[in-house]
Amino acid sequence: MIKNNNYAMICEYEGTKYNGFQSQITHNTIQDKIEHSINKIVNSSISIEYAGRTDSGVHAKHQVISVKLKWNHDPIKLQNAINNYLPKDIRVKNIKIAPQYFHPRKSAISRSYEYSILRSDDSDVFTRNTALQFSEDLNLYYIKKCLTLLKGQHNFRNFCKEDSIPENPIRILYDTSMIKEKNILKLKFKGSSFLRHQVRFMVGTILKIGTKKTPIKTLKMMLESKNSSNFFIKYNVPPRGLCLTLVEYDGFSLN
Amino acid sequence: MIKNNNYAMICEYEGTKYNGFQSQITHNTIQDKIEHSINKIVNSSISIEYAGRTDSGVHAKHQVISVKLKWNHDPIKLQNAINNYLPKDIRVKNIKIAPQYFHPRKSAISRSYEYSILRSDDSDVFTRNTALQFSEDLNLYYIKKCLTLLKGQHNFRNFCKEDSIPENPIRILYDTSMIKEKNILKLKFKGSSFLRHQVRFMVGTILKIGTKKTPIKTLKMMLESKNSSNFFIKYNVPPRGLCLTLVEYDGFSLN
Repeated sequence: MIKNNNYAMICEYEGTKYNGFQSQITHNTIQDKIEHSINKIVNSSISIEYAGRTDSGVHAKHQVISVKLKWNHDPIKLQNAINNYLPKDIRVKNIKIAPQYFHPRKSAISRSYEYSILRSDDSDVFTRNTALQFSEDLNLYYIKKCLTLLKGQHNFRNFCKEDSIPENPIRILYDTSMIKEKNILKLKFKGSSFLRHQVRFMVGTILKIGTKKTPIKTLKMMLESKNSSNFFIKYNVPPRGLCLTLVEYDGFSLN
Repeated sequence: MIKNNNYAMICEYEGTKYNGFQSQITHNTIQDKIEHSINKIVNSSISIEYAGRTDSGVHAKHQVISVKLKWNHDPIKLQNAINNYLPKDIRVKNIKIAPQYFHPRKSAISRSYEYSILRSDDSDVFTRNTALQFSEDLNLYYIKKCLTLLKGQHNFRNFCKEDSIPENPIRILYDTSMIKEKNILKLKFKGSSFLRHQVRFMVGTILKIGTKKTPIKTLKMMLESKNSSNFFIKYNVPPRGLCLTLVEYDGFSLN
């Protein structure tokens, strides 16, 4: 029996118009659009694998997906064919034939996200879908302190929606950083994997501390507490500032 | 008789969805949307003045408009009220009360435009509406040469649509420059005023020379020729890369 080729690819999207990545009955998800495009090409019903769900309104510069196909053309041709059927706010790129065992989620060793904050009194038409407009004063020293505290292995149960805390909420943040690009502040997080909404809850907490509405010791307590999380007020930020920027694998690169 | 206040403001828009700036019977223009918003507030039919028309799909970070109103509230309140009725891809900002004689077009002493070129083999979902994707090799030395040649006072009749060459096609380019921001190349032009499509024709010609498809001497000839322009092949680029970035006035600033 001839095995199907395991095609892996980077997928980039602006999530504004979609109900998140994962397929839903509405068919208005990124996964639905990609599967629909591939089905048009191969004329059968296929399912894709992917590195991680992103929520409604969240973007990706580097979501990784894979699909097994009886297709022996050049990957570039497959890429062009898929993009031909995709809406313009979803693109696939860098298609490669991956090892059979390769799975975008199970094989991943790290994920990186960034959250963009527009430092302005006014909203801005060019970043309205991809950054949170934030006009309050921010203490950058406190923000850096928060990023340092978050780094490392912690129980992140207090940075997750109550109803979606997993059995093991321990995760490792390999790296956290902050960069400024003109009037946009970007908070970056690289980790093993993330709890649902973890980045948005971390950013919400950082902004409360950065505006001096919450003392920095609260963040320490939130990271150290093993008790019920009801004690802490959790702050979430809107999805539009969030972007999945990289998924890495051991011994396999899509770039 | 009490004179109406002359409110001047900066208007920012992503032009993708609109039939250009200037009002049309379709009502799908930036001007229509702004006048509609102000009419809602003052409950009468007003017209705005503006610095310059931009074509369908062209953007602005700094279009200047003005409107005379019997309104004695704080400009910030007027700004918030207008923005409340505007779609999210059009914003007004920096409203100031201008002198009665101030007219956004007639009083302007310079306009600045930039054209964004994404240097990539693939299109990109985040810049798909605001940059031209261009995968061919570009000789940056030639591009700089072109920008230097274009600077100064010239007859720009060969950088204008045949049917819209004005009686006097002489214009002054005060400054031209090129900057790179990551994988985006921006060509910048500051001039007294511009002929219709002039920037797009200049960029089209620059790209032909940058890809070595047209010799640089053609640009010289296009600038020096006083004869019929039929001899030259004119190259236009799509509107989506173009943005009006600044309009300046003598003795009055909106920033």
